[in-house]
Amino acid sequence: MSTDLHAYMQGLGQQARAASRLMARAETAQKNAALLAIAEAIESRRSELVAANQADLDAARAAGLDSALLDRLALSDKAIATMIEGLQQIAALADPIGEITELKYRPTGIQVGKMRVPLGVIGIIYEARPNVTIDAAALCLKSGNATILRGGSEAIRANQVLARCIRDGLEQAGLPAEAVQVVDTTDRAAVGLLITMPEYVDVIVPRGGKGLIERISRDARVPVIKHLDGICHVYIDNDADVDMAIRVADNAKTQRYAPCNTMETLLVHQDIAATVLPQLADIYRRKEVELRGCPATQALLPGIKAATEEDWVTEYLAPILSIRIVADLDAAIEHINHYGSHHTDSIITEHYSKARRFLREVDSSSVMINASTRFADGFEYGLGAEIGISTDKLHARGPVGLDGLTSQKYVVFGNGEIRQ
Amino acid sequence: MSTDLHAYMQGLGQQARAASRLMARAETAQKNAALLAIAEAIESRRSELVAANQADLDAARAAGLDSALLDRLALSDKAIATMIEGLQQIAALADPIGEITELKYRPTGIQVGKMRVPLGVIGIIYEARPNVTIDAAALCLKSGNATILRGGSEAIRANQVLARCIRDGLEQAGLPAEAVQVVDTTDRAAVGLLITMPEYVDVIVPRGGKGLIERISRDARVPVIKHLDGICHVYIDNDADVDMAIRVADNAKTQRYAPCNTMETLLVHQDIAATVLPQLADIYRRKEVELRGCPATQALLPGIKAATEEDWVTEYLAPILSIRIVADLDAAIEHINHYGSHHTDSIITEHYSKARRFLREVDSSSVMINASTRFADGFEYGLGAEIGISTDKLHARGPVGLDGLTSQKYVVFGNGEIRQ
Repeated sequence: MSTDLHAYMQGLGQQARAASRLMARAETAQKNAALLAIAEAIESRRSELVAANQADLDAARAAGLDSALLDRLALSDKAIATMIEGLQQIAALADPIGEITELKYRPTGIQVGKMRVPLGVIGIIYEARPNVTIDAAALCLKSGNATILRGGSEAIRANQVLARCIRDGLEQAGLPAEAVQVVDTTDRAAVGLLITMPEYVDVIVPRGGKGLIERISRDARVPVIKHLDGICHVYIDNDADVDMAIRVADNAKTQRYAPCNTMETLLVHQDIAATVLPQLADIYRRKEVELRGCPATQALLPGIKAATEEDWVTEYLAPILSIRIVADLDAAIEHINHYGSHHTDSIITEHYSKARRFLREVDSSSVMINASTRFADGFEYGLGAEIGISTDKLHARGPVGLDGLTSQKYVVFGNGEIRQ
Repeated sequence: MSTDLHAYMQGLGQQARAASRLMARAETAQKNAALLAIAEAIESRRSELVAANQADLDAARAAGLDSALLDRLALSDKAIATMIEGLQQIAALADPIGEITELKYRPTGIQVGKMRVPLGVIGIIYEARPNVTIDAAALCLKSGNATILRGGSEAIRANQVLARCIRDGLEQAGLPAEAVQVVDTTDRAAVGLLITMPEYVDVIVPRGGKGLIERISRDARVPVIKHLDGICHVYIDNDADVDMAIRVADNAKTQRYAPCNTMETLLVHQDIAATVLPQLADIYRRKEVELRGCPATQALLPGIKAATEEDWVTEYLAPILSIRIVADLDAAIEHINHYGSHHTDSIITEHYSKARRFLREVDSSSVMINASTRFADGFEYGLGAEIGISTDKLHARGPVGLDGLTSQKYVVFGNGEIRQ
């Protein structure tokens, strides 16, 4: 690694740290003005942005990158409109910073509460999609953090234009331009440096494939808010409403195949399997979803492939579904906690006590009763936006919105009290 | 490192993981019964405990350990009574587990909230004091976690008796005996193994000197809830009530010298220094507190030592105080954020806007207005008990009580809703 790169990354870190102090005390109106000014800057640099994205796409095509990646890289008119709308939405959200909660008097006379504060400097590492540059910058800005963004090398040209838009917006609102910095080198060693500067970076959020996230989690010397697999389950209990079970199991798998909150394994109570599985299999076949089943499922649905141990731990992100018939609620919970990824799991039942047990005992970041797993995201939960879905237990768990990018400090209001 | 030790620690981990699943769904009454049964077991094994502690003390004396350490090691009648009382108090606290908050309807019809859940398995590494064995076990038990405790080798005999008391109590309440395991080897390699088993241990809480905590933070492969220095400040503003300023600055330094929330540096606005410092100096001299000052302080208080850069970053834990006269609020905040340890800092002022700025801009886990820094602990804040004071920003910040040993998962109550 070159000493130049090292000095460059250290410089970014120092500037981010300095900017984070100013961001922490920025006024709400200033932060909102910056978000709206960034939206305007994107509008006015639109042709520049489209040209840069075209150059990225040409280079990616020339390098032989696959069509899925090209898709993610492309900034359509709709994608640009969505970025602008996202900025406006985040400007409209309540400012989390400075909020004081749980302020209570203690017998000594002091009044103790908690104040929400920024984390400081957030490093975000992501792959192809250039729109993440804007989403991540906007969330960090609103939550009073400074941020260092490291996008994919395929998107470097578009990201540099977006970086200029962000800089314009920050300056126009009187905020430090260094509050959002986009790493402007494609050198892979930059990532290794970014995740090992605890003096300048407080937390890392990796967004991308499992390989990227595992590598960063292993090597990082600062905390990582990470999202690994989404191996989500729907469990149809024998006390389920059959129509509801079919509606939800259909939606959880087929509404979209690629999201992390899509169902990958369907669990069915043995007493209701013969009722629901043939109907569901018809729906899935019509939608060209490949089914793989346990032996009992194969007996009910002749001709489907056998599900292997590997299937229970696979996030297909594709029109494939594994199905297992289980003896009872305990077996369902055991399967989910053992094979699942602690992301999102749903039970379909009308049985009060079983619903309560599922809710409490399934160890996942989102646990649902009678709802599609597809609801597990920041917008649907009312967070306004999300920077990812955490499958960790510490700090943030589940969809991470503005609050996940903050901490809380204790505040004490006294009248000269002393400790006896 | 022996393969035996490796197998032993892996075994502890596996048993803890299995026990954690049962603890997560233990009923409140069961957990409380176990806490009270442990208290009774300590009472009935009192003579055994005292004898074991005496053997620990004899061995420590023979090994030439210093008197401060012997002090911490000794289990007096009062220390045993405090352990028993602590168990009763934790039994009386509300159960944090299963609490559902912020349950709100979304426009789609689903109702989304958060449920408090245990972290899983908590590893606690501590030095001399055997009472930590009981405090830590009780907090982890109440919060539905399994725990592996690694106490100091000096206290191994007393800790083993306490381990038997805990085991008795758990079994009597019908909870798994492996929910609390005490490492029964003094081999130092056990610590290295405990902090690198992410498959069995979810979080590590080190309690002890800075060296221990830094070493563990560096080597751990799981998250660490850590508490480093307490370099706490009181800033006397020029708009302070003079009597209050003197009362608080006296108490913050002299009420006890060893705690982490004791003031180590006093900052005084230049316009009030001549009024408050001579009076305070008289008090401190009477209490034999050594003063070290900046040049302006030395001019006001002839004969005191000069404070060096080193003094501003030193946690004395002793009757020594560094004093600096500052130009204004900005200089005070700058000093605290630069030299402090982000633990606890207090401003004494009657000025509304300056108080608000101090509260918002000081980047510490506890920020106070007109109160002694000595209030920064779990009991005083109403947490009921604490496992430590976190100077981290992620997850838990400030005094860590039961909630700090838990996480929150999202829960969704639906009526068969599907995503459109």
